[in-house]
Amino acid sequence: MGKDTQFVKEIADIETDFPQWYTDVVLKTKLVDYGPVKGTMVIRPYGYAIWENIQREMDARFKAAGVENAYFPLLIPMSFMTKEAEHVEGFAPEVAVVTHAGGGKLEEPLVVRPTSETIIGHMMGKWVESWRDLPLRLNQWCNVMRWEKTTRPFLRTSEFLWQEGHSVYATGEEAEQETLRMLNLYREFAENVLCMPVLTGRKTEKEKFAGAVATYGMEAMMHDGKSLQSGTTHYMGQNFAKAFNIQYTGKDGALEYGYTMSYGVSTRLIGAIIMTHGDSRGLILPPPVAPVQVIIVPIAMKKEGVLEAANALKEELQAADIRAKVDDTDNSPGWKYNEWEMKGVPLRIELGPRDIENKKFVAVRRDETEKKEYERADAVQTVQTLLEQISKNLFAIAKQRMEERILNANTLPELLYGVNNGYFIRAGWCGDRACEDKVKEVAQATARVIDEHNDAQTCVCCGKKSLHTVFFARAY
Amino acid sequence: MGKDTQFVKEIADIETDFPQWYTDVVLKTKLVDYGPVKGTMVIRPYGYAIWENIQREMDARFKAAGVENAYFPLLIPMSFMTKEAEHVEGFAPEVAVVTHAGGGKLEEPLVVRPTSETIIGHMMGKWVESWRDLPLRLNQWCNVMRWEKTTRPFLRTSEFLWQEGHSVYATGEEAEQETLRMLNLYREFAENVLCMPVLTGRKTEKEKFAGAVATYGMEAMMHDGKSLQSGTTHYMGQNFAKAFNIQYTGKDGALEYGYTMSYGVSTRLIGAIIMTHGDSRGLILPPPVAPVQVIIVPIAMKKEGVLEAANALKEELQAADIRAKVDDTDNSPGWKYNEWEMKGVPLRIELGPRDIENKKFVAVRRDETEKKEYERADAVQTVQTLLEQISKNLFAIAKQRMEERILNANTLPELLYGVNNGYFIRAGWCGDRACEDKVKEVAQATARVIDEHNDAQTCVCCGKKSLHTVFFARAY
Repeated sequence: MGKDTQFVKEIADIETDFPQWYTDVVLKTKLVDYGPVKGTMVIRPYGYAIWENIQREMDARFKAAGVENAYFPLLIPMSFMTKEAEHVEGFAPEVAVVTHAGGGKLEEPLVVRPTSETIIGHMMGKWVESWRDLPLRLNQWCNVMRWEKTTRPFLRTSEFLWQEGHSVYATGEEAEQETLRMLNLYREFAENVLCMPVLTGRKTEKEKFAGAVATYGMEAMMHDGKSLQSGTTHYMGQNFAKAFNIQYTGKDGALEYGYTMSYGVSTRLIGAIIMTHGDSRGLILPPPVAPVQVIIVPIAMKKEGVLEAANALKEELQAADIRAKVDDTDNSPGWKYNEWEMKGVPLRIELGPRDIENKKFVAVRRDETEKKEYERADAVQTVQTLLEQISKNLFAIAKQRMEERILNANTLPELLYGVNNGYFIRAGWCGDRACEDKVKEVAQATARVIDEHNDAQTCVCCGKKSLHTVFFARAY
Repeated sequence: MGKDTQFVKEIADIETDFPQWYTDVVLKTKLVDYGPVKGTMVIRPYGYAIWENIQREMDARFKAAGVENAYFPLLIPMSFMTKEAEHVEGFAPEVAVVTHAGGGKLEEPLVVRPTSETIIGHMMGKWVESWRDLPLRLNQWCNVMRWEKTTRPFLRTSEFLWQEGHSVYATGEEAEQETLRMLNLYREFAENVLCMPVLTGRKTEKEKFAGAVATYGMEAMMHDGKSLQSGTTHYMGQNFAKAFNIQYTGKDGALEYGYTMSYGVSTRLIGAIIMTHGDSRGLILPPPVAPVQVIIVPIAMKKEGVLEAANALKEELQAADIRAKVDDTDNSPGWKYNEWEMKGVPLRIELGPRDIENKKFVAVRRDETEKKEYERADAVQTVQTLLEQISKNLFAIAKQRMEERILNANTLPELLYGVNNGYFIRAGWCGDRACEDKVKEVAQATARVIDEHNDAQTCVCCGKKSLHTVFFARAY
């Protein structure tokens, strides 16, 4: 093997050992490192820059939708958690608890937020007085903690970063509409920013959020055919409004409980990107969130004018809001190609003395291998076009894969065959929890979302009449 | 009193009861609310938007300086805290401790970060191998927790938001230069973004950060003459490098310890703005960080075309990146004037049928009371100019006040007279801790920063030869 493949050897094979491939890629590209406490992660600059790009794009969408950011305390009184019965049941086993502070034992233990429905509900109960105060639509970007037994960087860690939106409306219809609107916002974001096709729909009772009336989810198919829940929105009805006394005086003077909803996406999205687009050479980052969109590798860097030309090109691209970088380290061009391929930079530009003389540059897309030559004078326009094409192509590849790997199953053996071979299963379900449990037991697959179309005739498990057509899959 | 003053009555008098004025203003303008746990705050949308503006401006400066963002875990093993002796002594009394998680007792208690020198030091120790890895310059935006006995929103709360920058350099000279460079970055930011004059300089041994070799501070004079520490930078020498084994192989092949430094500003800056610029009518927000820079109040709003004209003006201003808003609520114009004055919006525009007809608009600066008429066609240019003038004027007023209220003192009685009357004291100090303690005891004043010029002859306390000329003040 030549020098060009030296890196590839360091990453496990994506087809035969996907879990190790994932671990190799996230560590070697310096996206993340393990923290000193078991189950924690350190998000390194290259990974955090992806999160910043996700935040910027998502936050702009929230602001355009009229949602305002705020910040609520990290520590929640234990008593708050118990006010909504299902909520405490769902989260109590995995909370971290502060029992001592300021040199003494606390009178009441404080929970490190696993999610903030309770404390935000409490504050909304103080703030909301009349129908004029509604809707109240808030969001916060913060850290949350869930003490998980099995952890993996980005996918499941005891602490992670996320946004959690929380709204209260005067009517259930409005709150439910917002729950669906935010699901659509997430879908548009996944498709256009992460170049990631998703399935969206309602979750089953078994899979819903602890304390919700209804949960909606966004699921994406990873390289190994497993599903990754990538965002959820929840309609709470009056469950939290009653628990936290969120009441308002209506136009008619009557006192009513509000209706709440919430929604969240997390640093898990970084895991979703990695496992949707990555290949045997490493990461492939979607241009909208790539920290470096264009890496410029100078050829024969010591020759007069080469580095200057590379820097001039970088500045021209940066002036057009393209995230460009020159690799001016002492490493060989081949080494640089491999490194930046592994790091998933969407576009590589090679610029040497001959290119400079000919007023050209060479570019290689991360999603292709062919080198192509372009006019130096059109650099900005060319690069913009190429980045757009890469985005579209990444989405198209992932969409085609997902569509090809959805299998309609009528029986449990068919379902088992499908999940064993990396398919999402689309199948009828009678609506009984027992059948959902059976699918889990037999195939280790869970109901990811309910399809909005119910065209299945019979339950994949018991053969009775189908109530819903459901996407089943193994999931992260 | 007329309708125009109805709000003023709701705020305590700024001159006679400044603490109550502060509490009234932060609560009534909805910057903040008290959280359910004693000593915690909820940052409401109007307050959080200020923080977002501070973050955006500060983060751009860090990125331009070459600092990269990352994210480190919230929970720090207790054993890390004890590795640097002074550090644990300083922070141990005020940490919050997680003792239970995931349904069981932890083997080792985990500290909710009061600051992250230890955990970042630990990771840097893993990452840094050779001189090629240096300097390593990281920053994180996060929440931290210090269990304080006496708390006030923004100024001192058990949890607050901040940024903490941490760098490791090969040499002490470089790390110390960065410590001063970041102090200067903070000063430039305070002056140009917060319109707030500051004193900067080295802290005394008594006032330095727990574990630092030297701490530098930025101090601002509040309305009542007290000082608010608004940012600090710390040179750590090899203290943390040795505690966390941050070693690198030099160009000569020898293994050396690195030199670290750190720096931080927090949501306290919001308190600084409030107490620097506020007046008897409420907040005055500096244009660069004001969530609403221009409030447009339609006059005779029900008349045809008025609201449309107000919205058209808003959109024109927004297109020029001016944060403009129309108040189209049912309240009277007088009520609106008062509300937006209390909320500190830098510029108010009044737009009625006559203005529209005459192709004019009326504007009132928050730092003046006079109404002036301007040409509608020049709106964007006019508003930009006015906002710049307001920024300059706010800085000039605060600077003049600070300069007029610095008193050179030669004796303790002079110093006491000064601090009792709202002055910062500039005085000689022999360098002995005993004299520093005595000043605190007699006047409840502390050494804020050491002046770079030492022109005082004798110590204000003992009368011996002055080692440093120091700014003393009562402080928040």
